[in-house]
Amino acid sequence: MHKKDKEAVDLDCLDITPWEIVALGASNDIKDYCESIFSQGNGYMGVRGYSPIGRKNNNAERTTFISGFFEYIRPGITDMVNQPDFAASKIFINGTDINEMSVADYKQVLNMKDGTVLWSYTVLDKENRRTQIRIIRFLSMGNKHTAAIRFEVFPENHNSSIILETGIDGNVINLPIADNQLSDNTQFVNMWGKINSSSIGKKGSITAETIYSNRITTMEYYINIPKEYKAVIEADTKDNYTGSIIKFSGMQGNRYVIDKLISVANYRDGENIGDIAQNHLEQCIKFGFDGMLVESKKVWQRIWEHSDVKVESSQELQGAIRYNIFQLIQSDPSDDPYASIGARGLMHGRYKGCYFWDTEIFMLPLFLNTNPEAARNLLLYRYNTLEDAMESAKRFSLKGARYSWMSSDTGFEQCETWDTGCCEIHITADIVYAIGRYIEQTGDINFLKDYASEIYIQTARYWKERFTYDEQKDCYNLIHVKGPDEYCGVTINNFYTVKMALHNLTLALDSIKLMEKEFPEKWESLREKTQLVKDETKKWQDIIDKAVTYYDKDRELWIQDPIFEGLEPIDIGAYKDDNIPLYHKLSYDRLQRYQVLKQPDVLMYMALFPEEMPRNQMLAAWNYYEPKTLHDSTLSFGIHALIAARLGLRKEAWRYFNKSIFLDLKNLMSNTAKEGIHTAALGASWQALIFGFAGVWINSQGISCEPNLPEDIQSMQFKICYKSAIYELIIKYGKKPEINFLYSI
Amino acid sequence: MHKKDKEAVDLDCLDITPWEIVALGASNDIKDYCESIFSQGNGYMGVRGYSPIGRKNNNAERTTFISGFFEYIRPGITDMVNQPDFAASKIFINGTDINEMSVADYKQVLNMKDGTVLWSYTVLDKENRRTQIRIIRFLSMGNKHTAAIRFEVFPENHNSSIILETGIDGNVINLPIADNQLSDNTQFVNMWGKINSSSIGKKGSITAETIYSNRITTMEYYINIPKEYKAVIEADTKDNYTGSIIKFSGMQGNRYVIDKLISVANYRDGENIGDIAQNHLEQCIKFGFDGMLVESKKVWQRIWEHSDVKVESSQELQGAIRYNIFQLIQSDPSDDPYASIGARGLMHGRYKGCYFWDTEIFMLPLFLNTNPEAARNLLLYRYNTLEDAMESAKRFSLKGARYSWMSSDTGFEQCETWDTGCCEIHITADIVYAIGRYIEQTGDINFLKDYASEIYIQTARYWKERFTYDEQKDCYNLIHVKGPDEYCGVTINNFYTVKMALHNLTLALDSIKLMEKEFPEKWESLREKTQLVKDETKKWQDIIDKAVTYYDKDRELWIQDPIFEGLEPIDIGAYKDDNIPLYHKLSYDRLQRYQVLKQPDVLMYMALFPEEMPRNQMLAAWNYYEPKTLHDSTLSFGIHALIAARLGLRKEAWRYFNKSIFLDLKNLMSNTAKEGIHTAALGASWQALIFGFAGVWINSQGISCEPNLPEDIQSMQFKICYKSAIYELIIKYGKKPEINFLYSI
Repeated sequence: MHKKDKEAVDLDCLDITPWEIVALGASNDIKDYCESIFSQGNGYMGVRGYSPIGRKNNNAERTTFISGFFEYIRPGITDMVNQPDFAASKIFINGTDINEMSVADYKQVLNMKDGTVLWSYTVLDKENRRTQIRIIRFLSMGNKHTAAIRFEVFPENHNSSIILETGIDGNVINLPIADNQLSDNTQFVNMWGKINSSSIGKKGSITAETIYSNRITTMEYYINIPKEYKAVIEADTKDNYTGSIIKFSGMQGNRYVIDKLISVANYRDGENIGDIAQNHLEQCIKFGFDGMLVESKKVWQRIWEHSDVKVESSQELQGAIRYNIFQLIQSDPSDDPYASIGARGLMHGRYKGCYFWDTEIFMLPLFLNTNPEAARNLLLYRYNTLEDAMESAKRFSLKGARYSWMSSDTGFEQCETWDTGCCEIHITADIVYAIGRYIEQTGDINFLKDYASEIYIQTARYWKERFTYDEQKDCYNLIHVKGPDEYCGVTINNFYTVKMALHNLTLALDSIKLMEKEFPEKWESLREKTQLVKDETKKWQDIIDKAVTYYDKDRELWIQDPIFEGLEPIDIGAYKDDNIPLYHKLSYDRLQRYQVLKQPDVLMYMALFPEEMPRNQMLAAWNYYEPKTLHDSTLSFGIHALIAARLGLRKEAWRYFNKSIFLDLKNLMSNTAKEGIHTAALGASWQALIFGFAGVWINSQGISCEPNLPEDIQSMQFKICYKSAIYELIIKYGKKPEINFLYSI
Repeated sequence: MHKKDKEAVDLDCLDITPWEIVALGASNDIKDYCESIFSQGNGYMGVRGYSPIGRKNNNAERTTFISGFFEYIRPGITDMVNQPDFAASKIFINGTDINEMSVADYKQVLNMKDGTVLWSYTVLDKENRRTQIRIIRFLSMGNKHTAAIRFEVFPENHNSSIILETGIDGNVINLPIADNQLSDNTQFVNMWGKINSSSIGKKGSITAETIYSNRITTMEYYINIPKEYKAVIEADTKDNYTGSIIKFSGMQGNRYVIDKLISVANYRDGENIGDIAQNHLEQCIKFGFDGMLVESKKVWQRIWEHSDVKVESSQELQGAIRYNIFQLIQSDPSDDPYASIGARGLMHGRYKGCYFWDTEIFMLPLFLNTNPEAARNLLLYRYNTLEDAMESAKRFSLKGARYSWMSSDTGFEQCETWDTGCCEIHITADIVYAIGRYIEQTGDINFLKDYASEIYIQTARYWKERFTYDEQKDCYNLIHVKGPDEYCGVTINNFYTVKMALHNLTLALDSIKLMEKEFPEKWESLREKTQLVKDETKKWQDIIDKAVTYYDKDRELWIQDPIFEGLEPIDIGAYKDDNIPLYHKLSYDRLQRYQVLKQPDVLMYMALFPEEMPRNQMLAAWNYYEPKTLHDSTLSFGIHALIAARLGLRKEAWRYFNKSIFLDLKNLMSNTAKEGIHTAALGASWQALIFGFAGVWINSQGISCEPNLPEDIQSMQFKICYKSAIYELIIKYGKKPEINFLYSI
């Protein structure tokens, strides 16, 4: 078996309760896996869930990421920078590192109400001295520049010297991961050049600067320790490390509590990074650990008030639903219009931290319905990279704006494989679709005026150039494109891509009409800025009228592309007996000539346009494509659950939903340990729940709700935000749904 | 203008005479260019034409390559290793480096009769002391492990101390060049780990070992200096360098001649590399410079006896024709069945030294007609990498053998761009075509028995799997392929690829029949080895019968692929006003949606199968495709010249032929300085000359000759080899050609 095929994880270790994820046992087998599952973030920064005192040997796997902080690893290509590790700690009892002692009663708990992770266990040394250890870490939602770690040491049956070494470690490294899903990554890249560190006993500071662009991060910490411990505290500054060594005598039956408060600032925060970090640290010192936690918890409370989805179902499902929402929110830079959410959030460096269509098509709906301001900022990231998208179009010898398949702190293409980077062009239309949904649902007409219409025009311009007019047949073809089903190869007139492009053109035409009528002055300046000439838009309409897609009337079936039906059929069962992607067993190249889908394409479009596609067409597409779909992308299960629910295929919907909602919590793809949390799947699960089971759809006319609850969910209760008001939806199995207006915002 | 667009080279500096290429003037502008043009090789090794005393600062441009000597630069990817520089020398007169003196009467001469390059000039120091300098270098054709350099110093008007520092320099580095024709290369790679050097006055030795695979090269040198110079000779061993410092008094009016004799051996030569190098050096010492040159010249004489093409035309054209032949022969490892000819021969590291279809389709015919043993060895390289080709097929989840688009010392894919490496699959059929031509022309039926039939079967097997059967339409499609016209994108049923694949299948079927009948025992063992079952070949025939190509009866036109005619027309003239590839101005991606060809596709097939394609179809294809062809590959001109000549389009043929034959000598692509000599174009020029102008075609029935001489060539005279006999062809304008049997070999 291919070495990447399986991650051996004993999933029984995980206990999913309504508000907590609990791991019992400290087996090394689950260590990597738990590091992914217990990842923490506050949108500004994120850390993988490694224990502060259980440092990994591999410095590329001890990751701390800051939202939007990238650096070049070769010309034009960036990686998300692995930041100094502010957790780095060791505890010694009677001179022995507790990591070398035997461990009992190990428990690790993620509390989704307050965002804390607790590690709790007992260590025994060779003389049978028992010591209870508790460590609590959180990244503050109250002040996103701050984090805190509490160390508790409780000598059960002995008096001993206790030493805590803790600091900030700049000895971290990047492991940029190639686009190619099959290539091994062996080339570490050191991002950090100059690192200055200083420590004065209880306090330490580290400033690191990237080699290429001189981008700076400053981290500071402060140790809070009760005077009565009579601790001796020494500064401990080594190469690229700043820390404190804290020594005191531990007495049997006493609980010793030491807090480490941390502040973080980086070049994206403005000038004088050092001052910013120091100010935040002073705030930490003022509040202390408990005060900081109170503030952070308050914010989590507000978030859950809008975002929680309560279900009457198993405890496990309730916990999993919250986990999906929780992890997505942890990675969202909700107040930052210059960053987006990576395909593994802030929890893993996979895909070099880049942003994909995953954000707009899979993750955005959750924010749009629970925190429209955060949704707006995600879309503003695209507006703020519009110039780069225009330059990108130019590099492809085209006009207008072409968004990149993978982007980072700039909008320039980060994808290095030709077929994907050059041909998976639907992302441009995906972004426009998401903007359209945002405006429709929020009624934020100013966003249309100030940002969207400009994006619409430039992207429409791109599509006009990207379609090829066939004079003989008087039609438009989209040549050399790759649809969401990445196993279709590069083909022409891919259904999803063509239809999304036409929607893009339609929104552009509509917005011009609206701008002319509603905002004539702004329109005039935009027309001038974009140098739009009257005749240009005629061609857009012509493309809408004459673009080629393939529909088989007899079967009521939309055909994905003209090659698809000529591909070789394959007995999926003969190759695939689990959820592990088939590209580990069959080459990508070979898969492209089988009649199989990696993930939905026609059905994907139908998921986005439920009002446009009649039920018979949706059912025909389901019956045709679903059996041919391998779900080798984590984006697939949730969308299939959604469509199945809409079609009333409750059993299928429930089956797919479970695969999506437990994707990481049950390690269904066998890559959660190695690759981190799949953020798009989190969003797809939420959509399956709300748009599928609850049957919610929202357009400018209002909220509609046609539930399709599976038997296993007796009721659902959640809030959504529609045009500056909050509504509560209560859906009970077999009953008429309730939509209650709560209040305006 | 793009920085790569133009190389500013004053071409007036070059004088092309029937047997010599002469460069006058030593302007720095032409230095890089002359380094390419004056490249030297003997098939075992090659050096760029830099002067032994004019060392470049950039150690990656001082290149010495050994045929078949590659090393890994990252997992699976190799680069041709830049070897220690055995030329490295400096001359001081009265303590001043002559490179710092002013230069007069500069002349550089490549003599194609004996393979020598001469540098001749006069240096003047600040006190107006004039010294004539002559340096002659050759790589011996008599003993390919050896080379020699002669230094001549002639103080015209002074008595002075003269110092020659000369040695072998291991301080060289590789600059692996990315596949992407537009990317800059900035990452040097050091290939050499341990380098041992030793020197004992007149003699020195260096042994270098590559870092990754411990591949060894040993080079030795010996200084031949007349005793009467009373020179003091000191050993000069520095880091990675071994050399001698030779000091003597130079008297006015005396000519001082010092010879450096060099031997080279490497890990590919067997065990005890040091002994091998030493033995060769002893032979050098025995012969001396003059004796070595005599031996080398003898071999060149024999080569020219078979390879020369004499024309009654301009002196310049005669010289250019010889230059094309000469350079191709210099890069051919004629007696080595484990190496082939790189796309830039042994003269430049472009394309990492890799072997392409260029060898079999463009270069091989020259060898097949002038040195069948060399042709046989080129094809044996493919047999010797058959196992790798089978493993490659497996990596693509296919059976049989799949040759790689780019290969090096193994048959594994060296091309790193998806569309080319995965989709430009015609190379497998190209190799088989060349083998078929070899057997047909030589009658070497043992080659068929021992090697070819096995290749035929394994490649046919590959094609069987690579075609996709469409059950509904009962036909076979070749999906996701890229033809020779690399501007067509990845498409289906590319004409050239389909037709070549069918030829491959046909040869396989024919060879099985022949083997069964003629060599039943060998057939039995081959059948067992290949595990061929009877039914397998039925499918091959079925594909031959039902593969899809597109023919328009009305226009008598073969269509390149089903998308081509729907592409957007483009006014080529508006973009392209010279020979510089358009991909510097328009993106590759954009070019793929224009109705333009990079190089011939349908016409390419027609060039290879003149008997199969009726004249009307060839003319229709010419009229349709030629105006749409950008000739952005150097492979294009020669093939167009060939086809035009066959069609009797003399003016067009002459125009294209001139572009091909002078491609490097007139720097028509503006990249000869930067990229070296285009070996495939050399071969294409030869084919245009012999298959086009002379109208030669050879099949198992005999030699046919229907000349189409342009007015500018009054006559041609050359030899060809057919079934173990040598024939002389004499073709005179307006006269019936003569084909004279000369002798059997």
